[in-house]
Amino acid sequence: MSAQIKSISFAGAGNVATHLARAFNNEGYPVTGIYSPGMASATVLASEVGAKVCTSIKELDQLADLIIISVPDHAFSEVLEALCPTQKIIIHTSGGLDLAGMREKAAKCGVIYPLQTFSKNTVVNIKEVPFCIEASDKELLEELHTLASSVSDVVLEIDSEKRRVLHLSAVFAGNFSNNMYAVAAEILKSAELSFQLLHPLILETARKATLQAPLEAQTGPARRKDHVTMEAHETMLEKSDLYRQIYELLSKSIQENYGKEDV
Amino acid sequence: MSAQIKSISFAGAGNVATHLARAFNNEGYPVTGIYSPGMASATVLASEVGAKVCTSIKELDQLADLIIISVPDHAFSEVLEALCPTQKIIIHTSGGLDLAGMREKAAKCGVIYPLQTFSKNTVVNIKEVPFCIEASDKELLEELHTLASSVSDVVLEIDSEKRRVLHLSAVFAGNFSNNMYAVAAEILKSAELSFQLLHPLILETARKATLQAPLEAQTGPARRKDHVTMEAHETMLEKSDLYRQIYELLSKSIQENYGKEDV
Repeated sequence: MSAQIKSISFAGAGNVATHLARAFNNEGYPVTGIYSPGMASATVLASEVGAKVCTSIKELDQLADLIIISVPDHAFSEVLEALCPTQKIIIHTSGGLDLAGMREKAAKCGVIYPLQTFSKNTVVNIKEVPFCIEASDKELLEELHTLASSVSDVVLEIDSEKRRVLHLSAVFAGNFSNNMYAVAAEILKSAELSFQLLHPLILETARKATLQAPLEAQTGPARRKDHVTMEAHETMLEKSDLYRQIYELLSKSIQENYGKEDV
Repeated sequence: MSAQIKSISFAGAGNVATHLARAFNNEGYPVTGIYSPGMASATVLASEVGAKVCTSIKELDQLADLIIISVPDHAFSEVLEALCPTQKIIIHTSGGLDLAGMREKAAKCGVIYPLQTFSKNTVVNIKEVPFCIEASDKELLEELHTLASSVSDVVLEIDSEKRRVLHLSAVFAGNFSNNMYAVAAEILKSAELSFQLLHPLILETARKATLQAPLEAQTGPARRKDHVTMEAHETMLEKSDLYRQIYELLSKSIQENYGKEDV
């Protein structure tokens, strides 16, 4: 257990806040207060973890030693302003926000960035999720290490600059690959084919990327420089400018990785 | 066991040919001959499955009841020409080639299209791979059903038009998502961060797509319409026109799916 942190409150009740609140609450760090402007999501999460629904941000300050701000980046400054000044520890969960911006407002501040895609209704094995931490001083860094280690086996000290890069890479590996699944689902729908047919391919493509470098694992017409198939596919996509553009750009991206090599 | 098919030979010794030859050979359909223009890959595969390395395509005709042509689409016609005329059953494994094109040349012909990404050195659970089959006549379709069912639990009769759509969707769900992993790996490398950090995210993103529709599973800045983060990411990518273009296009693709909804 952390020496300084006995209770946690949350500003925000979205996907990340929900998974963190569940995890910390389960590991003996009671979640005591939750505020979110929408109220509805705060009410749901508060009832799940036994916390109080707060009607103002400032209320969070009285309820816990550590306040986790987990809101979209564009809303962060406003929430931080509303909380400060405070003697409590303030944490954000964002991949993209620097610690420096917080230090001007809060004396004791830090970051806990869990590198995973979270949806409220999907159970995640949080033990395997890399928790990237950063703090305003060494003592707090140790506290956050203890806290994060209570829920995850992978806790890393990562500075703001590297965290930004990590977040950007996660957008490609997670958000964009999911968009590729969504486009595939849409294409199949047009031919009344089940998206389920792609499940083994999707799982295997992901699994392979964990066994060998993605560059080695690459297959398909662009890798083979099979221009006949690529042209046929672009013709099939002519009804959707967007999908055709994606096809062209990503085929180009793949081809650029393999030079003139023939496979 | 199939009544007509007692042995199989292969024109081609690439990723698909390799996995099919292993699987059929294991299930009691001896692979007797392998031809590939490169010779080297044919020699490797032939020695693995105990087949003869053929020095001409026509030799395949004398060695088996069924000849599987598994070559890049652009090379297919030439291989088929070299084999015909023949009394043997001719099969191709392509997502993109119509059956009609084969019927003009070969009386008994069909398709076995395994919907999966195959690399020679990666073991795949072939029982779960959807095998899409098509044939020139009903009797042969039944033979192919028996043959495909010997290695896979998921055998489907899919016509040429639907198979083309399935292949196109697989390029998005498999090849393009793998390219997203490759771009992510490249971005991490620039900051000396390990690609391993993304493994849980990649696996979870894939797993989620099999549990809920990808449209529901989508997370990230584009889904949240978090323009501050998107602009910051594009600035970070300014050294690579290609990656910046991909970022813009796929963020647009995600945003178009969610209209004016705020999440």
